[in-house]
Amino acid sequence: MAKSAEEEHPKKAFGWAARDSSGVFSPFKFSRRATGEKDVAFKVLYCGMCHSDIHMVKNEWGDSIYPLVPGHEIAGEVTEVGSKVQKFKVGDRVGVGCMVDSCRSCDNCKVDLENFCPKMVLTYSVKHYDGTVTYGGYSDCMVADEHFIIRIPDSIPLDAAAPLLCAGITVYSPMKHYGLDKPGLHIGVVGLGGLGHVAVKFGKAMGLKVTVISTSPNKKDEALKTLGADSFLVSRDQHQLKAAFGTMDGIIDTVSAQHPMMPLFSLLKTDGKIALVGLPEHPLEIPAVGLIKGRKTIGGSMIGGMKETQEMMDFAAKHNVRADIEVIAMDYVNTAIERILKSDVKYRFVIDIGNTLKPPS
Amino acid sequence: MAKSAEEEHPKKAFGWAARDSSGVFSPFKFSRRATGEKDVAFKVLYCGMCHSDIHMVKNEWGDSIYPLVPGHEIAGEVTEVGSKVQKFKVGDRVGVGCMVDSCRSCDNCKVDLENFCPKMVLTYSVKHYDGTVTYGGYSDCMVADEHFIIRIPDSIPLDAAAPLLCAGITVYSPMKHYGLDKPGLHIGVVGLGGLGHVAVKFGKAMGLKVTVISTSPNKKDEALKTLGADSFLVSRDQHQLKAAFGTMDGIIDTVSAQHPMMPLFSLLKTDGKIALVGLPEHPLEIPAVGLIKGRKTIGGSMIGGMKETQEMMDFAAKHNVRADIEVIAMDYVNTAIERILKSDVKYRFVIDIGNTLKPPS
Repeated sequence: MAKSAEEEHPKKAFGWAARDSSGVFSPFKFSRRATGEKDVAFKVLYCGMCHSDIHMVKNEWGDSIYPLVPGHEIAGEVTEVGSKVQKFKVGDRVGVGCMVDSCRSCDNCKVDLENFCPKMVLTYSVKHYDGTVTYGGYSDCMVADEHFIIRIPDSIPLDAAAPLLCAGITVYSPMKHYGLDKPGLHIGVVGLGGLGHVAVKFGKAMGLKVTVISTSPNKKDEALKTLGADSFLVSRDQHQLKAAFGTMDGIIDTVSAQHPMMPLFSLLKTDGKIALVGLPEHPLEIPAVGLIKGRKTIGGSMIGGMKETQEMMDFAAKHNVRADIEVIAMDYVNTAIERILKSDVKYRFVIDIGNTLKPPS
Repeated sequence: MAKSAEEEHPKKAFGWAARDSSGVFSPFKFSRRATGEKDVAFKVLYCGMCHSDIHMVKNEWGDSIYPLVPGHEIAGEVTEVGSKVQKFKVGDRVGVGCMVDSCRSCDNCKVDLENFCPKMVLTYSVKHYDGTVTYGGYSDCMVADEHFIIRIPDSIPLDAAAPLLCAGITVYSPMKHYGLDKPGLHIGVVGLGGLGHVAVKFGKAMGLKVTVISTSPNKKDEALKTLGADSFLVSRDQHQLKAAFGTMDGIIDTVSAQHPMMPLFSLLKTDGKIALVGLPEHPLEIPAVGLIKGRKTIGGSMIGGMKETQEMMDFAAKHNVRADIEVIAMDYVNTAIERILKSDVKYRFVIDIGNTLKPPS
């Protein structure tokens, strides 16, 4: 008979879990594996709340495993390393993002694209190779192979670094991959949320001209003054749209709701590219003429490989890119979810795990 | 008052024109401009029938100008050159494709992408810069600036070369642009018509592995034995599809009818690309997950620039790539349209203008 979550591994752990698709969190005791020879164990200090955490705790993608401890923007401090660990030592500042393992031998893994490994193991709510379920960072401690551990440079605060492990790499990777990282290029960023606001900051750090494209005129000041975007475009304003036709080299589209694609293609120059990182529920409707005229493309991207995630974190540290966050206590998480659903956060909630997660009685 | 088509230019010309959106052809007298100092005039010997000719003569895109003389796969022999023409002389074997002029100074023109010039002038049924209407190759003669004239090497018959001027460059250009031209790569070709059959031939000439993807199992022999494809996939056969998941570097999608896109994305490897050259009437429905998982892209392409069109023709001549054609007489054109609409042609009708177009009485 399968052991309980609390007993299947030797190391006691605790966090907050959703018990069913109501998505309501409450304290939860479970266990973590012993620190293997290539493993790094760390005390979780901060964990960002990603919108996909909500999809998962509410089982909106249909594959959630309960009890479900979410969290894949995890930052903390190393407490133990295995005998063969080479890159980390006790006390190091580290993080874990969306994945904790992969096969390490497939065509994707061989070229540092563990994120596309068919056997990639997500940080929470999937079965690991040993059959036990993975639990995320809304918890007191983590353990993972050092290959999946990211070093967080001293210059970047752990709380502001945490969201970069998902939101940051999710926008950084397509900017690099689709060649939208060359100084002087002009990009549009669609959607000013957890992903979009970081895309603006990376864009400016890369030396790009950045235009925020939004349905909400009231985000203009925030985009220009706080985030440093160069211009702001209300996507429903035909006059503004027309004035910007054919001016952009690329667009980072972070929106997960249905939205008209043809206006975005119109904004692109010849050979312009849309990089899609949002995940709308329904298929995108793309007029063929939008692609064919001007040889335009739309391509996806999904987080990034471990090597690139470290590169992103080092770049962010060096160029002062941080997520804008609201730090909350563990027991605020149920309220935070309601606020995320109302887009009432600028731009990421980060749970102060270290100071506010109490051991269950 | 505007002059009639027969009188607006000094040079008498004749061909067959559709008079209205019934799309029925009949003999038509018009005129061509005098050969300017940079112009090349040529006697039309062959003209291919492209499916877009049908859209145009039936005004299905809403912008047709009648009387309408279609034809943008035009091959013939030079009869006169202007005083400043450098590349051609009387007697040369030449062709004209989809365009006869462009601004020559915009960002697109400067990089040999006249096909994306906002002022590009199509070969037929648009107003040229002087306000007169352009007429295509279902006619006895052509005249165009030498920049828009393609040299047809001696080794390639004029009738089999003609369709390359549209169908050929339409598939060659995206294969080059999207990097699907490297020996050893595996591409899929969706749709085995005028475009698809040439894509197979270019693919094999480039050293690719080519799989034809079709809804019709009965095209298998043709694809493998006649055209030389390496394999054949019935797109509605789930078993065959699944066996080919993740095996292709790219897909050339030539289909202009609605068709499910998700199976095509499934066939691609990580970073695989779909190059769209068909023009479905309704928007493509593309699930975001199809793009995001494996970082896949879909991009358009529309004919090609003049420099690349010449490169394509030279490549075809050198590597023995020819369109498979059925040569017809001018007065068969109304019947040919009916047959094209039933997909009853392998794979392109080419009108023998030189021998069968008679002067109107």
